[in-house]
Amino acid sequence: MTIKVAINGYGTIGKRVADAVAAQPDMEIVGVSKTSMNADAYVAKARGYPLYIADLAKRPDFEGAGVPVAGTVGEMIGKADVVVDATPGGIGLKNKPMYEEHKIRAIYQGGEKHETAGFSFNSSVNYAEAKGRQFTRVVSCNTTGLVRIIHEMDREFGVEMVRAVMVRRASDPGDIKRGPVDAIVLDPVTLPSHHGPDVRSVLQHIRITTAAMIVPTTFMHLHVLQMTLAKPATRERVLELCRAHPRIGLVTKAAGIRSTAELKEFMQDLNRPRSDMWENGVFEESVSVEDGTELWLFQAIHQEADVVVENVDAIRAMCSDVPADESVRMTNAALEFVAL
Amino acid sequence: MTIKVAINGYGTIGKRVADAVAAQPDMEIVGVSKTSMNADAYVAKARGYPLYIADLAKRPDFEGAGVPVAGTVGEMIGKADVVVDATPGGIGLKNKPMYEEHKIRAIYQGGEKHETAGFSFNSSVNYAEAKGRQFTRVVSCNTTGLVRIIHEMDREFGVEMVRAVMVRRASDPGDIKRGPVDAIVLDPVTLPSHHGPDVRSVLQHIRITTAAMIVPTTFMHLHVLQMTLAKPATRERVLELCRAHPRIGLVTKAAGIRSTAELKEFMQDLNRPRSDMWENGVFEESVSVEDGTELWLFQAIHQEADVVVENVDAIRAMCSDVPADESVRMTNAALEFVAL
Amino acid sequence: MTIKVAINGYGTIGKRVADAVAAQPDMEIVGVSKTSMNADAYVAKARGYPLYIADLAKRPDFEGAGVPVAGTVGEMIGKADVVVDATPGGIGLKNKPMYEEHKIRAIYQGGEKHETAGFSFNSSVNYAEAKGRQFTRVVSCNTTGLVRIIHEMDREFGVEMVRAVMVRRASDPGDIKRGPVDAIVLDPVTLPSHHGPDVRSVLQHIRITTAAMIVPTTFMHLHVLQMTLAKPATRERVLELCRAHPRIGLVTKAAGIRSTAELKEFMQDLNRPRSDMWENGVFEESVSVEDGTELWLFQAIHQEADVVVENVDAIRAMCSDVPADESVRMTNAALEFVAL
Amino acid sequence: MTIKVAINGYGTIGKRVADAVAAQPDMEIVGVSKTSMNADAYVAKARGYPLYIADLAKRPDFEGAGVPVAGTVGEMIGKADVVVDATPGGIGLKNKPMYEEHKIRAIYQGGEKHETAGFSFNSSVNYAEAKGRQFTRVVSCNTTGLVRIIHEMDREFGVEMVRAVMVRRASDPGDIKRGPVDAIVLDPVTLPSHHGPDVRSVLQHIRITTAAMIVPTTFMHLHVLQMTLAKPATRERVLELCRAHPRIGLVTKAAGIRSTAELKEFMQDLNRPRSDMWENGVFEESVSVEDGTELWLFQAIHQEADVVVENVDAIRAMCSDVPADESVRMTNAALEFVAL
Repeated sequence: MTIKVAINGYGTIGKRVADAVAAQPDMEIVGVSKTSMNADAYVAKARGYPLYIADLAKRPDFEGAGVPVAGTVGEMIGKADVVVDATPGGIGLKNKPMYEEHKIRAIYQGGEKHETAGFSFNSSVNYAEAKGRQFTRVVSCNTTGLVRIIHEMDREFGVEMVRAVMVRRASDPGDIKRGPVDAIVLDPVTLPSHHGPDVRSVLQHIRITTAAMIVPTTFMHLHVLQMTLAKPATRERVLELCRAHPRIGLVTKAAGIRSTAELKEFMQDLNRPRSDMWENGVFEESVSVEDGTELWLFQAIHQEADVVVENVDAIRAMCSDVPADESVRMTNAALEFVAL
Repeated sequence: MTIKVAINGYGTIGKRVADAVAAQPDMEIVGVSKTSMNADAYVAKARGYPLYIADLAKRPDFEGAGVPVAGTVGEMIGKADVVVDATPGGIGLKNKPMYEEHKIRAIYQGGEKHETAGFSFNSSVNYAEAKGRQFTRVVSCNTTGLVRIIHEMDREFGVEMVRAVMVRRASDPGDIKRGPVDAIVLDPVTLPSHHGPDVRSVLQHIRITTAAMIVPTTFMHLHVLQMTLAKPATRERVLELCRAHPRIGLVTKAAGIRSTAELKEFMQDLNRPRSDMWENGVFEESVSVEDGTELWLFQAIHQEADVVVENVDAIRAMCSDVPADESVRMTNAALEFVAL
Repeated sequence: MTIKVAINGYGTIGKRVADAVAAQPDMEIVGVSKTSMNADAYVAKARGYPLYIADLAKRPDFEGAGVPVAGTVGEMIGKADVVVDATPGGIGLKNKPMYEEHKIRAIYQGGEKHETAGFSFNSSVNYAEAKGRQFTRVVSCNTTGLVRIIHEMDREFGVEMVRAVMVRRASDPGDIKRGPVDAIVLDPVTLPSHHGPDVRSVLQHIRITTAAMIVPTTFMHLHVLQMTLAKPATRERVLELCRAHPRIGLVTKAAGIRSTAELKEFMQDLNRPRSDMWENGVFEESVSVEDGTELWLFQAIHQEADVVVENVDAIRAMCSDVPADESVRMTNAALEFVAL
Repeated sequence: MTIKVAINGYGTIGKRVADAVAAQPDMEIVGVSKTSMNADAYVAKARGYPLYIADLAKRPDFEGAGVPVAGTVGEMIGKADVVVDATPGGIGLKNKPMYEEHKIRAIYQGGEKHETAGFSFNSSVNYAEAKGRQFTRVVSCNTTGLVRIIHEMDREFGVEMVRAVMVRRASDPGDIKRGPVDAIVLDPVTLPSHHGPDVRSVLQHIRITTAAMIVPTTFMHLHVLQMTLAKPATRERVLELCRAHPRIGLVTKAAGIRSTAELKEFMQDLNRPRSDMWENGVFEESVSVEDGTELWLFQAIHQEADVVVENVDAIRAMCSDVPADESVRMTNAALEFVAL
């Protein structure tokens, strides 16, 4: 029996989760929702996803443009086993009473606080704990990227301390309102940034200090990661662990890639949907171990994509008996992950 | 019998032409060529295109990275009916003696001068004239975009004068070397720019004055076009002509798109390969006719893509008996053009 | 006797007008105003301008940071002969009842509508008409730049038609919130843009059609101007007129400047305050005349600066008997205009 | 008796050093040099600096544009006590035989290797050691910025380990050729970067690991610095040390500045020549001390400016008996340093 999934908020994340869900053998999309007419509505129609809207007074805007409206968000939720809430940060909290009233499971994104869901999820770390919950929160793109690599190193070597600098993209590629145009913005100016505590919402025992900036680019965050390890590591062993991890990809030296732009071009050339990079992109050449326990590396995180596969896994974790490894395998296979 | 096509220069244009050729029912790729190892070589391998290289001394760079080398560029050419030369501007001229020696048909890009080929091509204008030629030049992305719309208006209304301003992207998305970062660059400072004469390499009788600038973006050129028409036109008729043209798309008002970035996002959401927009993107809302004969409009031109379909048509025009309309239809169908 | 000037809104424009006023022999600054504490307040203090604030409840924010507060905006206005309203667009209209109550003259910026002041000003065109008015509006940076050159060509040759494309900077250099980062934005998508009618608020008889875009740069707008002239012109005569105009500068070929960035660098090297370019920067090499009456040129307009000198002239026009030519000369001399 | 200074290479750094030297009471400019005519030549003329050129065959380019040529670079050097070599990286090495032949002291920039001069200089660290040398190298902008703050912390607390991430501007503001436009570039991809060893060319005993990226901005590098201290420190004591240091400025919280762009705007508003920030800009709010010995902070480094004052001090260190503290005081006073 397939899991019936509703997407509340068909935008940057929502449209990606919808396609990833639709590609799974054990899931189907019962509807997606929008608040106002724009190009995304044409995309939903082209995909054949029933489109629900928040305010039926806007129905003429959609239908006048040739996009049929299936009903209200409430009606959509009534047809689903689980709803993925991909609305803008803070709106998810406002939607909570509606989900409680419908007694429907809901998956929040990292724009909501941990407290809204009471449980923060990463498929490599705590998949099994999602079972039976009504609410789960997939942590943000940056946190997801940090958790994957830190957890893997911690399992093998023990991580005593993490120092991470995140250089973040200013706006998503299609967002024309946000800047800056020519500035490096400290966000926040105070140190450390909030990313460390957010990592601890999933990995409670990790010591981590983070700093974050915004730069005028549109595609991918870039992390500089330094980890002080408990046991000695070698560069080769770290590379092996990266290669073996289902959600970490190695950007190999032979590809000659040394920027986010070239990495995007490669994803595009590989025919990835929307040029999405769902895995962490660890730069092979950057991985270095000093004095045995001081690990450094660069990794690229596609802000629009890495959480998409986590949402798919979270659905299975909450609504099925499929175990973690099998879910990750199924998710990746359905998306035809090509090795980075 | 299929037409055997070689791609000399597997880069931004070459890799797109290769995929477009491979999708045609009457063509096949016999090989693609590169000068040095990088990510594109992995892409050629993933696509199954035999890879030839200019200098066999570099074979270990490729094979050490797991990419087999099929032979030399000369060998590749020996297997083909026609070669698409997508090497950087000016290299095509240097390759001409090799093509003459092999007595092979060659298609040049707009980075080469008209004189190199002696014939400048656009599938809507002079397809039939390519028959029997050894050399043909597909004009540049900007010229292709100008020629399409000007020719269509000229056929219907007569065009007495064109005044065009081209606001050009600074670098292709994957090119990290070229700037500017924060400047509008007049290129050239002198007026008019060379684009008018280049339009006349295809449409000899058109009066046209152009100005061009470079701005720090990576995706699409934006044209402001003003045409003084011989016969009165209506906005509605101009829109009809755009809708009916196989290589002009209308960016509709309901999509709410008002920038190159949103247009790219839409192409990406439509699952176009590499987010490519092969057609002119004319903004419906911008089309305006003042005083009956003064036509204004904005159009977006995807610099990496609009010439790709022209190359495919040029191959048929030179190597087959398929007429122009049928070739354009076949090319579009193979790429699953979705109406803009 | 000096004219007492208050600056309501000490931001991008206000701080420049304040310094330009302070440099005039016949004017003095009685105060500047701000709504909240930030770096500009330190600048006002360093300049010795009394600082007034809109809401005295915020006084501790300023005084805690070492910046004394002189009183309320109402008190500031009480000390002035004229107020320059440099508040954000639309706030000026809300301030109008306050100015009427105080019976004080006020100068608005181009962010306010023509109707708010009832009179739109340019010192080269209608200086004398400002005399005796309570309200005057200095038109926007783009309109000021257009009016200067169009009026000068119209006086000499007669201008039958203007076609102008404005490529606009996305944000001011210090504004980190506004984008886009990597897009050309049509603003507006509909053609023609509102700039033509705004030119006619000063030059009522001119026929003009305009198109406007926004690009991710921070410094200067770039205009492509085409004018159809009534009488034949020569390139040399057009250059002479530019050289002779007190508010038009020629960017000479020998300087090798072909972008907004290089032009800013030159302004900076000339020790202009804040790298300001108060005049239109017409590119000498771009000036071209086809068929005797078809004039084309590129001009750069510094969005933060060109209206500053117009504000100073507007003050004299409203509050003194100094004639137009003498005011322009005085304004320029006080700022030590160096020939572009 | 004044020290006679020649500037070989009147570009981004050279023109700033020239003005800084000219402002000193004990120095004078005997000439500046250029290789080809452009806007900088007009600036040299406006400042009254005799202009020398490398190749007298180009004299007509300059004199035709109204800029007199005083002679050859060799002649310029013959009039000087010391030459500041501000030519592009690598050219300084080629100039060395000329300096040796003329037996003239020369100061190199950070674009040259340590070995070219044999001595790397920072006025806070090793001023006295420059005495009597023929060659001295002022380290690069990033290294200068790192050395200042690390040395100060090391003197007070002892620095056991430095981990630094440098987010670098892509091009100088007036440079329209260099990109990237929309990418974060790892430069280099390998870790650690070369900046650590360069710091050790001045501070030989410091343990330091660095990583560096390039982002599409034009003004200032941004450093994230983490230092593990030998003795416990407090945030307040670190702030005191920054306030007391003649080449470190504190960006105060009340100014509300949280980006490079706002910091530049502030420099510009303070009427700094060319908006130059000669000191390290440490963000007050960012300074944090965890567990007593783990210090973190953000600092901004103006790539065009911080080495300018070091060059002035290096001149005194090599050519006079003025002690270090007095030289720094004189340099700062002549430039009218305003407290950040």
